[in-house]
Amino acid sequence: MDTFLRRWRRAQEELGRQGVDHLLVTHSSDFYYLTGLPIKASERITGLLLSADGAARLILPHFELARVPKALQAEVDVHTWEETDDPLRRIADLVGKSNTKMAVSDQTWSVFLVGLQDRMPGGAWVSGARILTPLRAVKDETEIRLLREAQQKAEVALGNLLARGLAGKTERQAAAELVTLRQEAGLDTAGSVGIVGAGPNGASPHHLNSDRVIQKGDAIVIDFGGGHHGYRADITRTPHVGPPSAEFAEVYEKVRRANAAAFAAIRPGVTCASIDAAGRKVIDDAGYGAYFTHRLGHGIGLDGHEEPYILAGNETVLHAGTTFSDEPGIYLPDKFGVRIEDIVVVTGTGADSLTTFPRELQIID
Amino acid sequence: MDTFLRRWRRAQEELGRQGVDHLLVTHSSDFYYLTGLPIKASERITGLLLSADGAARLILPHFELARVPKALQAEVDVHTWEETDDPLRRIADLVGKSNTKMAVSDQTWSVFLVGLQDRMPGGAWVSGARILTPLRAVKDETEIRLLREAQQKAEVALGNLLARGLAGKTERQAAAELVTLRQEAGLDTAGSVGIVGAGPNGASPHHLNSDRVIQKGDAIVIDFGGGHHGYRADITRTPHVGPPSAEFAEVYEKVRRANAAAFAAIRPGVTCASIDAAGRKVIDDAGYGAYFTHRLGHGIGLDGHEEPYILAGNETVLHAGTTFSDEPGIYLPDKFGVRIEDIVVVTGTGADSLTTFPRELQIID
Repeated sequence: MDTFLRRWRRAQEELGRQGVDHLLVTHSSDFYYLTGLPIKASERITGLLLSADGAARLILPHFELARVPKALQAEVDVHTWEETDDPLRRIADLVGKSNTKMAVSDQTWSVFLVGLQDRMPGGAWVSGARILTPLRAVKDETEIRLLREAQQKAEVALGNLLARGLAGKTERQAAAELVTLRQEAGLDTAGSVGIVGAGPNGASPHHLNSDRVIQKGDAIVIDFGGGHHGYRADITRTPHVGPPSAEFAEVYEKVRRANAAAFAAIRPGVTCASIDAAGRKVIDDAGYGAYFTHRLGHGIGLDGHEEPYILAGNETVLHAGTTFSDEPGIYLPDKFGVRIEDIVVVTGTGADSLTTFPRELQIID
Repeated sequence: MDTFLRRWRRAQEELGRQGVDHLLVTHSSDFYYLTGLPIKASERITGLLLSADGAARLILPHFELARVPKALQAEVDVHTWEETDDPLRRIADLVGKSNTKMAVSDQTWSVFLVGLQDRMPGGAWVSGARILTPLRAVKDETEIRLLREAQQKAEVALGNLLARGLAGKTERQAAAELVTLRQEAGLDTAGSVGIVGAGPNGASPHHLNSDRVIQKGDAIVIDFGGGHHGYRADITRTPHVGPPSAEFAEVYEKVRRANAAAFAAIRPGVTCASIDAAGRKVIDDAGYGAYFTHRLGHGIGLDGHEEPYILAGNETVLHAGTTFSDEPGIYLPDKFGVRIEDIVVVTGTGADSLTTFPRELQIID
């Protein structure tokens, strides 16, 4: 509970610093970050309302109260609502004055925000990320350990998949096998199938796995993650079935060098945009810039994608403890795709890779 | 594609009828309902923008375009955005005039709504459910067939679980076994563990499974679902390990009769509130009203919980084709809980139960 209370205080400090009166956090990783309660998204609102004046309130369905640990109940004003109550009216009443400025957690459903706005017509509304990103983007030691363990589990699963060979399986079959291997490695795979894009299908960065049979001569973009005590793994490798063409080998090497160049650019005090630029330069210089169609990376923690995003225009400065993906790619339509993705953490002087899986081109069966 | 186009036209008619200019639908079952595309919730917005004037536009990340079927691309104006673009600005520009009235899908993340509101300060905002509930709450034959099949798969899994016996297993072990059985029955279990609440734990309706060992004398509230082509199963039964006490047998019988009374009250033209009242009366009359702490049921379809909700105060009138749960319960703190949940469909003259699993008290090992 101490960890949560410390986070509440920091969020309340941010509220005060930014002149925002309240932060409402509903179902989402933000809620889990602040309470440790894994509340699922639902039409029944459960919210933590933190206020600049130090108040902390928990609003939840009455019949869910038994799920809230006593230690948490002891630290908040608990406001339960019955099935026929109007919980948004309750929140509006708790907030009180009508010209309040409220931050709302980013993943809160719009139906709740629209309903609150109807009940608080004088309110002003801002993104909850303004308050919570400064907290969540800097991981503590426990969080970094869990992220590292999540990566290690993903690497075990990937290693086992590649060792078995992929030729002759469909993308869907390979992905299903990988789900099992991820679970065996101890990852929670709920809701994430992973991407297995073979041959020309790899040229669609977020390919939906198909019944294409993987065959000799295919490059395979394999991208997946999973959960470990709430923290997310994410890894991409692009092995090749049998010997590659000269063109593939060249493209692969450019992506590998872009991944390394981005990694080398990471240290406290540099901007997200500069990391993207360092990786992108390698690919631009090689003439493949038009085929690197996405940002270099994304933050990772309790969400698979979270702040900070590593792309041009993001002048956010990196601090030690921030974790994100380094995942350049080149996608040649109708031919193949290549992506190499590591998860890295900013250290006091540079960066450490939580991913240790080989980045060199792997030839598999 | 014909099904989707018909739904678009009906949504556009609703927009016109209600005086709303546009409907923006992002990641969610609403988006799947209108496009067939399983877009995951993400910080990268993908949206279908339907307008009362007949326009249909798809806004999505450029690199995702390869995932959109040509048949869909042919029917919409496609607006792709690059990683460094501002897609919310693009949507605001598409909408044009500043005093627009917009419906936003209920599960759209608040970060997008707040961002749109910043870019459209003269806009008025309403819940997307206003437009889409009239469509989604009346299922067509294909949807009812898929819901029935989903229920059948859940019943197979439950039957197999009970046949094996539960005594000696922890709640978590039983739930894990059930996940496997659900998958073997052909259900997608992504993200849903199911509830196994044994003995006093069953008195918390949304109990988080624990390491409590199931033992003789325990009632076990078992509540789970799963996906089948996007449509959801949901079932609850409360078997008893070994012979029950007289008190348990009496409470069980009240819940069974409440479930039957609610079912008997269903026909086109009656209100949701009247169904809740019919079931609740049985429990109230037996003196257990204070222990039936939740609504009688919820709609079900592409979402596990969706409109219409079956509770006091909801004067929505039921139409043939609407599917919802009939799930009364009695929860006696520190003793046990009982819940019996069926999925039912309103027919032309009454109701049909998609759930056929026995409702009589089952004594198991």
